[in-house]
Amino acid sequence: MGRLIADMSVSLDGYITGPDDRPEAPLGEGGDVLHEWYFREYPGPDGRPARAFDEVFEQMRETHGALLMGRRSYDIAGGWGEEPPFRIPVVVLTHQSHPTLAKTGGTTFTFVTDGLMSGVRQALAAAGDRAVGVHGGDVTRQCLRAGLLDELILHVVPVLLGAGNRFLGDGDPHRVDLEAVSVTESHGVTHLRYRVIR
Amino acid sequence: MGRLIADMSVSLDGYITGPDDRPEAPLGEGGDVLHEWYFREYPGPDGRPARAFDEVFEQMRETHGALLMGRRSYDIAGGWGEEPPFRIPVVVLTHQSHPTLAKTGGTTFTFVTDGLMSGVRQALAAAGDRAVGVHGGDVTRQCLRAGLLDELILHVVPVLLGAGNRFLGDGDPHRVDLEAVSVTESHGVTHLRYRVIR
Repeated sequence: MGRLIADMSVSLDGYITGPDDRPEAPLGEGGDVLHEWYFREYPGPDGRPARAFDEVFEQMRETHGALLMGRRSYDIAGGWGEEPPFRIPVVVLTHQSHPTLAKTGGTTFTFVTDGLMSGVRQALAAAGDRAVGVHGGDVTRQCLRAGLLDELILHVVPVLLGAGNRFLGDGDPHRVDLEAVSVTESHGVTHLRYRVIR
Repeated sequence: MGRLIADMSVSLDGYITGPDDRPEAPLGEGGDVLHEWYFREYPGPDGRPARAFDEVFEQMRETHGALLMGRRSYDIAGGWGEEPPFRIPVVVLTHQSHPTLAKTGGTTFTFVTDGLMSGVRQALAAAGDRAVGVHGGDVTRQCLRAGLLDELILHVVPVLLGAGNRFLGDGDPHRVDLEAVSVTESHGVTHLRYRVIR
């Protein structure tokens, strides 16, 4: 049975966007710094410029069989363009039904309207024995609450933003115990990988 | 000139106490988990039980020449008892004047009533060429805001609390750039050490 793994870029003070996020500025005021590390070019092993973005998605395709995301993440990314980087089935949780989309490169978007559990089941079925990647703050929080998340990976960007949308900690006491699986540094960020203890 | 170094135990979702902290329960509801790692016994190098608490204070005395803390931290700890673990001068920021206290073991408490800058100056003078440790969320935030902090160390405890008092990120946009100096794991917690970029 596949595992549910969420990963997210956060500031050291826990924000996943700066303040005032909106469709034209999905990462909010000053929030672009949180995703810069994906796109910063560095000399690759073959001498050509490489980007963490490509590395991350290559690794993801090795371990993940499907993705689960909310409609907001889908819309903000403009449906991820003509050729999304995932190349695996993506289940989108939404309130409004929408026909399945098959895009260039092998990414399919299936829109699920009957709730989190149904979306999780469909993503797990699509993933087979591989992992399901959970994408976006809302869906990750929902999975944590429902006791469905197996791993949580934070890419901690060395900046304090002071304000914005938080990833975790909404003021409602709900303890979740974790165990650090690995701590690594690359591309100027610290990758904290945790297993959820149930 | 000495550096200002703050360190703090935080949950992965950024809390330094659980909800409903009060004098009888200074770490709030469920917040004790944040400091358990200091006191958990493990087999020391000489076979006798050791605690991170002793290790942390031993290391601190090697690098730090003085501490700076707020009156609340002083009061909550009951004045740190008869023989506080610091054994160096401690400057306490307060609104109410109080004579200097010299306690067993070499810890002195000097109470400063004329503001943060005065407290920082007095702590730096007491520390000589060694570092000043900044203790407590309020004073650390004040030092960050004033551009006075040189290093920030977070001991990240693998737990999500969901609610409580946060260390950083009060909703007021104020960007601070950092650089990771080291990332280590011990005693079940992840120690993230950052230099503040000014």
